[in-house]
Formats: sequence, structure tokens, C-alpha cells
Amino acid sequence: MDTLHETAIVIDGLIISKWDRTVFEDMRRGGLTAANCTVSVWEDFPATVRNIAAMKALIRANGDLVTLARGTADIEQAKRDGKTAIILGFQNAHAFEDQLGYIEAFHDMGVRVVQLCYNTQNLIGTGCYERDGGLSGYGHEVIAEMNRVGIMVDLSHVGAKTSEEAILASKKPVTYSHCLPAGLKEHPRNKSDEQLRFIAERGGFIGVTMFPPFLRRGIDSTVDDYVEAIGYVINLVGEDCVGIGTDHTQGHGKEFFEWLTHDKGVNRRLTSFGTVQNPEGIRTIGELPNLTAAMERAGWKAERIGKVIGRNWLRVFGEVWAPAKTGAAA
Amino acid sequence: MDTLHETAIVIDGLIISKWDRTVFEDMRRGGLTAANCTVSVWEDFPATVRNIAAMKALIRANGDLVTLARGTADIEQAKRDGKTAIILGFQNAHAFEDQLGYIEAFHDMGVRVVQLCYNTQNLIGTGCYERDGGLSGYGHEVIAEMNRVGIMVDLSHVGAKTSEEAILASKKPVTYSHCLPAGLKEHPRNKSDEQLRFIAERGGFIGVTMFPPFLRRGIDSTVDDYVEAIGYVINLVGEDCVGIGTDHTQGHGKEFFEWLTHDKGVNRRLTSFGTVQNPEGIRTIGELPNLTAAMERAGWKAERIGKVIGRNWLRVFGEVWAPAKTGAAA
Repeated sequence: MDTLHETAIVIDGLIISKWDRTVFEDMRRGGLTAANCTVSVWEDFPATVRNIAAMKALIRANGDLVTLARGTADIEQAKRDGKTAIILGFQNAHAFEDQLGYIEAFHDMGVRVVQLCYNTQNLIGTGCYERDGGLSGYGHEVIAEMNRVGIMVDLSHVGAKTSEEAILASKKPVTYSHCLPAGLKEHPRNKSDEQLRFIAERGGFIGVTMFPPFLRRGIDSTVDDYVEAIGYVINLVGEDCVGIGTDHTQGHGKEFFEWLTHDKGVNRRLTSFGTVQNPEGIRTIGELPNLTAAMERAGWKAERIGKVIGRNWLRVFGEVWAPAKTGAAA
Repeated sequence: MDTLHETAIVIDGLIISKWDRTVFEDMRRGGLTAANCTVSVWEDFPATVRNIAAMKALIRANGDLVTLARGTADIEQAKRDGKTAIILGFQNAHAFEDQLGYIEAFHDMGVRVVQLCYNTQNLIGTGCYERDGGLSGYGHEVIAEMNRVGIMVDLSHVGAKTSEEAILASKKPVTYSHCLPAGLKEHPRNKSDEQLRFIAERGGFIGVTMFPPFLRRGIDSTVDDYVEAIGYVINLVGEDCVGIGTDHTQGHGKEFFEWLTHDKGVNRRLTSFGTVQNPEGIRTIGELPNLTAAMERAGWKAERIGKVIGRNWLRVFGEVWAPAKTGAAA
């Protein structure tokens, strides 16, 4: 008999692993239907286009395992085909540079989720690791254009003030794609109960992460601590706007984390992760079935598990990616 | 009763006018169903993406007149809707820079025709205004990638040797989208009978232009001289691989032609057009019905006119734009 995990649509709201066949194989091992896969953090426009080209070449070369997700129908097709649909995403809108026109170009290339800022200030707003003056005038224009073309606004690493103003500015649901509740552990990256309620009450979405430095028990955490954190968020906002965003980084070494944790990849250090070791039971993407099992162990009903493990993400992606009603398509 | 022109699918293989509502209105006046519209000549990658964004914004703002052509179905829909389908095209592959990955990015953005070189040498080959050492190794890779994603290779301003090697290298039909026969007038931009037969015999396509400096009677030409030139080409290669490529430049002033006629837009002068005045009867895009009338006046059968005025272009675009059979889509 198929397990709940095997029959479910399983969607991970954030993975930033080293892209190669090994990771794609692990995605299949984990029964992953789709994932928001980071292809830009500190890169500028041309470098990001090259990252996308490299990812597409990798997808073509591994067409037995993965496919590109341009819409939710591609995700549903991937489920039927036993493949993983790769959603192209950025963790920083730096690649938009000063050109609103680049946003539609990236949408044309298949980009579907973009975080406005990564830890620090850019043209749009400010990240969660420095003083945050809020959403800029250009930031308002960027959100309007992302709404128009159908790219989801991600706020996980964005500062509190910029996030609040972005939630109010967006006409489509926005997301903290990979965050944890500050109610379980205080951390600049974690979100307060108030912040979690604020985004949820305005139609937004929360992907709960399990990155050990932000978890209550740090690197001693297990997959059950992850389920506890997801349960905490559901308790605050209900079970319809919550999903997972694991933030798996597998395959990357020290050099990559040094690049991530320095502003612009090369300037001042912003944070130090220490040892990166995911919770026991879900150290790798391939262990994802253990997460569903832990939800069952926690006494969650099948309906709730199905929503949180993927169906909620599928619904909200459908809402955000649909073309805006106004104006002709071009 | 509708005229032959009114009922026909009318496709212009090359227009490089100043893009604004005025030109779009003239396209409708001329009963134009679709046109390959130049959005890059000397521009690099980012500047070309910005040109495309500007064109798309213009298309959206004038959705009552025009629509973007991503496939031949869009052209047929435009005919039904009484609109003109804008095909995005380049007259130089300079914008590909040294990145094969940019080719698919441009295809994603809607680019469907790209001329390999504009008058001079680039990374791919050499234009028709200087010594031509043929298609480079990178040029072979570029053509293979254009074949794969479905962008038509244009050779109008490309040198003889690079053109010949490109015709042999391409697995899909290539085109001289806007050329005239050297048999009627010797000019570096005109193609010999041998060259015209060479491309046609290998499944290629010829769009006949009417740019006065390349016409037998120069600026004294009329629309009948244009029909004579088209007839000359049909006489050589038959009526199934021939269309029109007017090269209308309306709306542009001296500054634009100075930019066009200098290498990279700013270096040495390559040619001088003198007075640019299109043949009498077809000075503007809006006068296109006069071309069909002139074909009828020349005694052409309705079947031939229908093919040459648009149906041939539609067929060959369909052949080239279709995804390649091999490899998964990404």
C-alpha cells in the first residue's frame, strides 16, 4: 500500500543545494514533487542569466529525474511522471538591478519566486541583518511589476519594516518561504508571532524552515523539533497558509557559506552559522519521508499533512503565478 | 467584396522602424498580419534585454493594434483579431556575447529571428562589408543552439563565406530575410544567382527587400520595380521559398542611420545610404496593399500572391520555431 508521503504532492519552498545530478537523485529518493531552487543571491543580471542557463542545461541533462516548472500544471505533471519540478527562485532581487524590464525577462526565463532582499540593503529595501528603513519607491514599483507578471514576493531574509510594507503593497499573496518562529527561539532571522499573524491575515504564506541555527535546540534538533515548529506556526495562523521550506544546502562547502554570509559575497561578515547540520532524521533531502512520518507520529490528521507537505504551496503558487487580469499579455 | 490583400496573411520579414504607436497604426493601415521587428543591432546583452522590455511595454500599451508573436498560432490569431503580430528579431547576434546560454534566455523572451552578423565581424562570423573568413567554431555552436531552441538564422547582412557555411551547418531552414538579387544590381548587400540558388536548394528562405540603394533604379524605383525583383528571385528558385522583407525604416532620422552605418554604431563608416526614399507606391508600411495590387497588375496568380505576401513565411516560421525533436524541454 502506498504511504501518505508517496501519494502526496510534496513541495519544498526553499532549497539552495549545490545543483548537480546527486541532488536531483536525492530529490527523487525523498519523493519531492517540486522545490523552489535558488539560482541567484549576490549575482548581478548577466551572471544570474548564466546561472539560469546552467540550471536549464542541468535539467535537460537529467530529464529522467527533473523538469522545469513554469506553472502548477508542470508540478502536477511531474507528480504523475515521478519527477521533481524545479521552480527557479532568487534569494535576492539584486539581479533586477535598476531595470523594471528585467523582471519580465526573468519571468520569461521561468523565474517564479524572488526574495526582495538578502540580509542587507539593496535598491528595493533592507534585509534582516541591518537597520531597515522600509520599502523604497522603486521597491513599490518592483512589487507591482512582480504582481503583474506573476513572480511571488519572498520576504524570509527581509527586514521587519520592509516586510510589513511589502505585505501591504502586494496585491497578490507574499511569503516567508523559509522562516522559524521567534516564539521558539529569538534570532534576527526568526519571525515574531505578530509578524506571522500579520502576513497570514493579509493572505500571505509561511514556509517553515529547519535550519539548525534558528531552531530551539540548534544542532541537537531532530525531525520532531521541526514538526513542533511547524505546529507552532499552524497554531498561530491555521493550517491553510503553511508549508515547508527546508533550506537544504547539501553539497555546498565552506567557501559557499563564506560567500553567503558576507555582504555582496565579499564584504563584511554578517553572521556565522557555525556547524551546519540539519535535524536528525532529515539531514538530507532524500529523508523527506521521515518528515511526513513525524507529522503522523505527532498525531496530525492526513488532511493537515497533505496540505502542509505540499497542497498549500500548490494552491498559493497557482494564485500568484496566474497572469494579472488587467492588460494584454505580451 | 474583400480584396485579395484584405483576406491574405501578410508577413513582412524585416522592419526596423522607430517603434511607436504611429508605426503600429500604419501596420494596421497596411493590413500587415505580422512582421519581424528589429530590437537589436549593435547593442550588447543587457541593452538588448532593455530594448525588448521597452517593445513589450509598447505592445501592452497598444494592445488594440498589436500583439506579441511567440508562435505561428499567434500570427493566425492576430489575423482573426485584425491586429499585427510583432515578431522580435535581431540584425546582429552581438547581443549573444560569449554566452550560449543567452540564446535560450532570448528565446524565452520571445526572440524568433536573429541575423548572425551585421556588416562586420563578430564572434560568430563576418558581415558583408569586409573580408570574410567564414563561420567560427563558436558560430557553429551558436547555430546548433539556435536550431535547438527555435530561433531562425538570418544571413542578409552576412558575408558570402560565413553565409555559405551557416547554410550548410544549420539543421533547420535559414533565411536571407531582406535581400535583393545582384543579377539586377551589383552591390555588397545583394546576392548572386548562385547564392540565391544555394540557400533555396538547401531548404532556405529568401525575403526580397526594396531598400532603394540596392534596387536597379535606386530612388527612382516604384512598387513595380519591387515586384520585378521578387519575380526575378521566383524565376530562380520557385515560388515556395520566397517572401517579402521590406526593411521599412520609417520614423528614423539621420542620427539613427549614422549609428547603423558605422561599425559598432560609433567606429569607422561602412557605407552611406544617401537619401533613403522607398519605391513610389510603397513609401510607407500603410501602402502595403499597393504591393499586392502591383503583383496582380503583373499578372501573378492569386495562389502565388498569397504565398509570397505571407503564407510562405508562415510555413517556414512554423518549421523553424517548432521545438527540436531531441531532448526534454526545459
